[in-house]
Amino acid sequence: MQRTEISAYGEFGLIKHLTEKFKLENSSTLKGVGDDAAVLSYENKKVLVTTDLLLEGIHFDLVYVPIMHLGYKAAVVNFSDIYAMNGEPKQITVSIGVSKRFSVEDLELLYAGIQLACTKYGVDLIGGDTSASLTGLAISITCIGEADADKIVYRNGAKENDLVCVTGDLGSAYMGLQLLEREKAVFAGNEEVQPDFEEKDYILKRQLKPEARQDIILRLREKGIQPTSMIDISDGLSSELLHICTQSDVGCRIYEDKIPINYQAVVMAEELNMNIVTAALNGGEDYELLFTVPLEDYDKMIAMEGVAIVGHITKSALGLQLVGREGEEIELRAQGWNSLED
Amino acid sequence: MQRTEISAYGEFGLIKHLTEKFKLENSSTLKGVGDDAAVLSYENKKVLVTTDLLLEGIHFDLVYVPIMHLGYKAAVVNFSDIYAMNGEPKQITVSIGVSKRFSVEDLELLYAGIQLACTKYGVDLIGGDTSASLTGLAISITCIGEADADKIVYRNGAKENDLVCVTGDLGSAYMGLQLLEREKAVFAGNEEVQPDFEEKDYILKRQLKPEARQDIILRLREKGIQPTSMIDISDGLSSELLHICTQSDVGCRIYEDKIPINYQAVVMAEELNMNIVTAALNGGEDYELLFTVPLEDYDKMIAMEGVAIVGHITKSALGLQLVGREGEEIELRAQGWNSLED
Repeated sequence: MQRTEISAYGEFGLIKHLTEKFKLENSSTLKGVGDDAAVLSYENKKVLVTTDLLLEGIHFDLVYVPIMHLGYKAAVVNFSDIYAMNGEPKQITVSIGVSKRFSVEDLELLYAGIQLACTKYGVDLIGGDTSASLTGLAISITCIGEADADKIVYRNGAKENDLVCVTGDLGSAYMGLQLLEREKAVFAGNEEVQPDFEEKDYILKRQLKPEARQDIILRLREKGIQPTSMIDISDGLSSELLHICTQSDVGCRIYEDKIPINYQAVVMAEELNMNIVTAALNGGEDYELLFTVPLEDYDKMIAMEGVAIVGHITKSALGLQLVGREGEEIELRAQGWNSLED
Repeated sequence: MQRTEISAYGEFGLIKHLTEKFKLENSSTLKGVGDDAAVLSYENKKVLVTTDLLLEGIHFDLVYVPIMHLGYKAAVVNFSDIYAMNGEPKQITVSIGVSKRFSVEDLELLYAGIQLACTKYGVDLIGGDTSASLTGLAISITCIGEADADKIVYRNGAKENDLVCVTGDLGSAYMGLQLLEREKAVFAGNEEVQPDFEEKDYILKRQLKPEARQDIILRLREKGIQPTSMIDISDGLSSELLHICTQSDVGCRIYEDKIPINYQAVVMAEELNMNIVTAALNGGEDYELLFTVPLEDYDKMIAMEGVAIVGHITKSALGLQLVGREGEEIELRAQGWNSLED
């Protein structure tokens, strides 16, 4: 494969080269890359802003993450935060720091992944920054989105008796990560062994190429359902429930047998002798939505594809309870993924 | 000095601890830190967005940059980009990646610097991200600002015969950096030597604690002057002139003896046997404004404190010419600071 050194381009040449294939599609984007700042117009909508910093060795491992997938995921996880406000992502800025290990071709793949995500979700790339790095790859993305003032959903609106809903399934992304880590360790021991990914495609995809739940946001709107609180599940169900319950000053009861779990994730957990419910509660990176709706929406929610009702909101004094398969109660704590604590 | 390990806080605890002293002051900020995204309202204004990624060892050296100054500067350089659009900065997000070398007290100082800048320039901290880093400190800041649609100034509006104006003085920040690098080298050779910073306070301040030219933007507005093009001088005058001339499809004539240079910078350049004009043209990090105004504004500009008229805009075919003290013409090229090329 061809390798073009980054130094063959200047800083401005490189930004131009990497971003010139991106077209501006949204009417709210007045000016994108190429000036001191981008210019946007949000006259009839509120502006949502979220940001993420991803560092090599902490948030991703390029030994098993294809760099194009990394670009896709880095963009999508930011879109997910905007959907979690019941908004629509419209623009992103992408800043990267790259060491000499990376070639222009590597960065082209990274931006191809970002572009794929932008095209799929209808988002414009409007700016960014490119610089050298002493140590690997750093990616910082800021996403800007829009929402109607009266449709924005915060974390603090859950009310007693509301239904607690979860989209998709939980724990799969974490089991995909465990699989990749196992195969990396096996490969390190014997480089002739080829990784064994048979019937593991779903959990791998969940880890390497997650999607944001735009579809659910659109479906809720179609059905006229306005969640009372919402958050995306990036750190595990426990951690996100804690955010919602703390900020809403409520408690919750979650039923273990209602937590949606995929079959491949169950099989993987068994292979690795892990508890799949623990993975669902604390695993992280699912990028599903956790939200609450008034009890009156029960019939609509039951009929909605891709959403599971996992419990209900209680008084604050009752705390966060997980009801096990035998009816036993366990208090939920956020263990989450805490990259600062290892 | 007390040292609290970052691991004493969780990720969310740390963000809360570092940001809870920040108050939201702007009416356009509806919701700051604490949800999936911040919520802003920009109904009667356009939204400006700019972003910067700063990496330890590439963009700053903590051997001689106090971490509080670093926080201040990291924020201010983003504000400068918003002023360069003739806008006003209103919100920032701050994401940091930190290695175990850093204590909570270090980060408190970093955020104290950011807060000082936010207070001075009237900007709200609305979000961010905190994570571990394998290798030092990474800071990513996105700044959001506002402008009236008809007041925004791009890089592409310069017209033949426009006056080319520069604020403050150029080259001082670069000479401050050279001084700090020299003293670092001396210190490395003999740790008992104390740095010699006498009568160098101005150039040090220009390097360590630059200001953004809010004052000039306000003064231009008061005087009813609308620049035809504008950019902030972060990479040196040559590089910024090239951006304006390329994007406006014009040339320029700049007079060497009109370029504003501070006395301390001249003395420092002599001490180091460097050419101060080269430093002004290519040094970078001045964060002054370069702008063009119609010739009719000549009288107003001449009377304006803190601004120098350094030349005028010509036809594109005439290129970018620097006219030396003896009348000789030199073609300007952007050498700039290119952190990708070393």
